Amino acid sequence: MSGTEIYLDYAAATPLDQRVFAAMEPYLTSQYYNPSAMYDAARAVRADLEQARHRLAMAIGAKSQEIILTAGSTESINLAITGAIGQYGGRVATSRIEHSAVIETVKRLGGLWIEADHRGYVTEAAVKAVITDDVTLISIGYANNELGTVQPLRAIAQLVEQIRQDRRARGVGLPLWLHTDASQAAGLLDISVSRLGVDMMTLSAGKCYGPKQVGLLWMRAGMQLRPLIDGGGQENGLRAGTENVAGAVGFAEALSFAVAKRGEESRRLAHLRDQLQRCIEDAIPGVVVNGHPKQRVSHILHVSIPDLDGERAVFALDDRGVMAATGSACAARSSTRSHVLTAIGMSDELADGSLRLSLGRQTTAGEIERACQIITDVIKQERGL
Amino acid sequence: MSGTEIYLDYAAATPLDQRVFAAMEPYLTSQYYNPSAMYDAARAVRADLEQARHRLAMAIGAKSQEIILTAGSTESINLAITGAIGQYGGRVATSRIEHSAVIETVKRLGGLWIEADHRGYVTEAAVKAVITDDVTLISIGYANNELGTVQPLRAIAQLVEQIRQDRRARGVGLPLWLHTDASQAAGLLDISVSRLGVDMMTLSAGKCYGPKQVGLLWMRAGMQLRPLIDGGGQENGLRAGTENVAGAVGFAEALSFAVAKRGEESRRLAHLRDQLQRCIEDAIPGVVVNGHPKQRVSHILHVSIPDLDGERAVFALDDRGVMAATGSACAARSSTRSHVLTAIGMSDELADGSLRLSLGRQTTAGEIERACQIITDVIKQERGL
Repeated sequence: MSGTEIYLDYAAATPLDQRVFAAMEPYLTSQYYNPSAMYDAARAVRADLEQARHRLAMAIGAKSQEIILTAGSTESINLAITGAIGQYGGRVATSRIEHSAVIETVKRLGGLWIEADHRGYVTEAAVKAVITDDVTLISIGYANNELGTVQPLRAIAQLVEQIRQDRRARGVGLPLWLHTDASQAAGLLDISVSRLGVDMMTLSAGKCYGPKQVGLLWMRAGMQLRPLIDGGGQENGLRAGTENVAGAVGFAEALSFAVAKRGEESRRLAHLRDQLQRCIEDAIPGVVVNGHPKQRVSHILHVSIPDLDGERAVFALDDRGVMAATGSACAARSSTRSHVLTAIGMSDELADGSLRLSLGRQTTAGEIERACQIITDVIKQERGL
Repeated sequence: MSGTEIYLDYAAATPLDQRVFAAMEPYLTSQYYNPSAMYDAARAVRADLEQARHRLAMAIGAKSQEIILTAGSTESINLAITGAIGQYGGRVATSRIEHSAVIETVKRLGGLWIEADHRGYVTEAAVKAVITDDVTLISIGYANNELGTVQPLRAIAQLVEQIRQDRRARGVGLPLWLHTDASQAAGLLDISVSRLGVDMMTLSAGKCYGPKQVGLLWMRAGMQLRPLIDGGGQENGLRAGTENVAGAVGFAEALSFAVAKRGEESRRLAHLRDQLQRCIEDAIPGVVVNGHPKQRVSHILHVSIPDLDGERAVFALDDRGVMAATGSACAARSSTRSHVLTAIGMSDELADGSLRLSLGRQTTAGEIERACQIITDVIKQERGL
């Protein structure tokens, strides 16, 4: 990034941390051996892979053998949902504001839909209303990737436990599992799986300063999944294919560092985010700040501005050196309106005037000050057209 | 690799070419943007990704839009087989000597089995004997990853075309497609999809001096597949997930170079392989050279030695600085007997005395001379015990 450009799209992609690159490099150069081979050099690579798995497990308070390394969070989500329904039968329930990987998988499986409120918040009551006795899996994202809303996962996990007890009491045989996509939460929220009380958790290296197409699915011991990708038996038979050792080692470095710095970094970003929000609110009458006002991850500010063309605004911001998004990158590419904003009941007009500004490790107070000036200038100019 | 160690396991993993690492580096550092984002910097990354796809397509004589980037050949194989059967129904037929990714997927789908002969050769007649009217997909590897045997793909493709014509004439509605896993062939055999006449082809970056967990599935225009991984619509909806741009760019560099140097490198390796074979045959009475004597990929030498414990021999070789395998790395890890050797009718005793010696770009004549001395020493010593 040059000194004059301001990157405010950390929710779409994070730069690879230099420490992470340094950790990966040996496995992209001299340590290229297949970790399944029998000679010492390959066994050393296997040991490094397992050490990376151990570090990943430690970062979320889990055991190594519960970590399935995948090629990214989209694959993890597909494995969690398709794998659990394939294994246990029954139906999956999710909210309409999830990442498209969840939405499309649940659509394919004919799942049930949990309502989110206008803040993108999924209450226990909304979950409870949908969970019939044939539901075996609930998938609720931890921090919404567009709005930043943080869901009450602990409360939902407690509800799941109540439903299980109730099912047992009534002799209903199907299990009930809770999966969360925590891709936007790593390094910003508590991702201890025991404290959250979930049964499966998806994480993405590419969203926490690690490499792209590297992810994991944590699965509670005792659960089973039907694999999506069969073959040489890697990842305990749940994800075949020669392992991406460089990716796993980089992910471990990235996640460990992100978790260690979480408190400090989360406070720093929340402060900068609030500063940006106040600045925009002061300059732009009628701006709507989306997401839950309190239960919101610290790096995302999502605003909608009446009479703004968000897409045009993103291009105008780019011309002025500010990289931002109207919504998720996937939606940006297909030029479709955000399904998240539609699901929370926002009008098409307001949705089309949306900006997602997401902050990260290299964001500075000076950048936020300059960014606010540029963003408010651009909004005023674009609305005047 | 230190100067004294001799790596003879290129079929399990190839070192990353320095050119490939250099090509990948920008996308692991400054060019981290999500290729689906809207600002110029991200669009430039998208353009580089599409340029990589174009280079991959050119290397196999195909069109860019026919290339599906995946996280490795195991995923490509699963997508080809599960995706085609999911789309077209019917059954899949394969040989019993395929890579475990094919074997396990076909087992899960309840497919049909084509016999390979004692050389690991799959004749058109063997294919023809199995293809009933409910078969919609045949999957035959190009170069067997254990024996090195090269299958008569062109002839099998012609047979497939005859069966199609016959089906049309008889009003049988199901299509018939031919997939090949060409992971061991890149840079050593002709992988032009039009000359081969196949409908789908799997390639692995990790087997041609590119990064691990990067692969592609080429699919003929007009075919359809049901995706394994749903989400943000990447790869024409056939493989969702933020793209591994570094991986794709590295793969393009690796494959282009491998294809450009194919003739020369293939001849060089065949010469070295033959030298190693003669040397072992001269020193070890009773050694059996496996695979097809003529239709054999140039980098693999597979031998079985009566009264040898192959696993012990691999450890002894490692002590002497030679890295080799008894069979495929996947089988090595699970310590199971090679399904390939069982399928070609080899006795358990002989199978257990097998060594797969695979050569590659850094193999030299000097290494082969030293390796032969060490290998024959170790075999003699181990057999004497």
